[in-house]
Amino acid sequence: MKRVRLVIAYDGTDYCGWQIQPNGITVEEVLNKTIEKVTGESCCVIGASRTDSGVHARGNVAVFDTCSTIPPERMAHAINRKLPKDIVIRHSDEVEPSWHPRYQERILKRYSYHIWNAAWIDPLRSRYCAHVSFPLDIEKMEQGAGYLLGTHDFASFCNIHTQVRNTVRRIDEIRIQKAGSEITIQVCGNGFLYHMVRIIAGTLIRVGRGFYPPERVGEILEQKLRTEAGVTAPPEGLVLEEICYDSQEESGRIKKGR
Amino acid sequence: MKRVRLVIAYDGTDYCGWQIQPNGITVEEVLNKTIEKVTGESCCVIGASRTDSGVHARGNVAVFDTCSTIPPERMAHAINRKLPKDIVIRHSDEVEPSWHPRYQERILKRYSYHIWNAAWIDPLRSRYCAHVSFPLDIEKMEQGAGYLLGTHDFASFCNIHTQVRNTVRRIDEIRIQKAGSEITIQVCGNGFLYHMVRIIAGTLIRVGRGFYPPERVGEILEQKLRTEAGVTAPPEGLVLEEICYDSQEESGRIKKGR
Repeated sequence: MKRVRLVIAYDGTDYCGWQIQPNGITVEEVLNKTIEKVTGESCCVIGASRTDSGVHARGNVAVFDTCSTIPPERMAHAINRKLPKDIVIRHSDEVEPSWHPRYQERILKRYSYHIWNAAWIDPLRSRYCAHVSFPLDIEKMEQGAGYLLGTHDFASFCNIHTQVRNTVRRIDEIRIQKAGSEITIQVCGNGFLYHMVRIIAGTLIRVGRGFYPPERVGEILEQKLRTEAGVTAPPEGLVLEEICYDSQEESGRIKKGR
Repeated sequence: MKRVRLVIAYDGTDYCGWQIQPNGITVEEVLNKTIEKVTGESCCVIGASRTDSGVHARGNVAVFDTCSTIPPERMAHAINRKLPKDIVIRHSDEVEPSWHPRYQERILKRYSYHIWNAAWIDPLRSRYCAHVSFPLDIEKMEQGAGYLLGTHDFASFCNIHTQVRNTVRRIDEIRIQKAGSEITIQVCGNGFLYHMVRIIAGTLIRVGRGFYPPERVGEILEQKLRTEAGVTAPPEGLVLEEICYDSQEESGRIKKGR
């Protein structure tokens, strides 16, 4: 029995998120069924991040156990041949049988949030951007974002329907860039609460619009109340870009030639 | 009766092209039906460019005649409210009643063709890129493209199922750029034959792959035979970016305050 790790990209538009649920098709379900076709065994992938309905990924991570003779590094190719066009395995390798994509000490996650800021939204970007037609002040958004850097209790930036008790997280970097009509917010940190990136985006949009002064972001953080922050920005703007397991040991990769 | 001009963007993935046809839904059909809902009159738009099935646009142009009291410049907003998400009117204005979006002397059209050049295709770009997994030599593609600049008989770069007799066209600019894994070919000229941009893209891909030396593009042009050029590259990579009607008179716009 081997444990195979997959790095997965998907267009989440037509999926009810990652996690299997009775009311619609999910990425996890499609992966399980496709891997079952490839290996001939039943399959239950374990995902690193249970992205929400409509959220995209370029670097989600999952593992599954198999007795298949297909070499782990060829598994990506074998599965891709049978996947629908909107899910792609970017990479596959073997990891230690005990390696778990969620329970690792030094995980870093990087998300991007995309806003189309013009009167009309380009239909070639509308699957991947939230549309904000009123002007946004990027400099003020950057000032507001500055208050979120570092280790804080992000209770104000967490959906109330969460079972998580510890709402302390660390944000290492927030970058806001504009290219043409598209504004991209890049956020990197050691973990994110339920809806956290989308609530940050919704709050920074309020700052950019002039509804909140930038320093209000610091006050919201201190209040530790979800009702203080901006609305949750829509899912289509969000992309889980990357999950880094930063030490050699935690990355779990099995060295060749062992 | 007024003639209203529309500048239209669309994601062509789910349409059987522009022109109305019995076997599937088209952009022209959706526009007609939506404008009929807005104005309460029957509508037959006249398009500038009959894009193929699966081809996208950011700047196709169309006109329609109406007695509606909605001001022409507000028409974009009124129609957008009832259009599906994958079609957007970017702009609307009034033009002279005789102005026709195809029969103008000094039209310039700009297309972009997008290639995803890596082992795996990003599913967030697969609706808008052709996938080429083997390496492409951009410099050679640029050298090959150089032979196409200027006024030539482009018979070798025209689908044989065309009714056009005069296959002479002028290409003013071809630019090839790479950003990450995406290669973009920008082509600007005074008119394009049936499948011309996609055959140019297919031929330059052959050059980039090393199957054709760059000078072969000049030879293909001289032979004036479709069979000499590369295959027609797939539709999803093509975007009609812009149509310019370059003189004030030909642009047809009715000046305010007349």
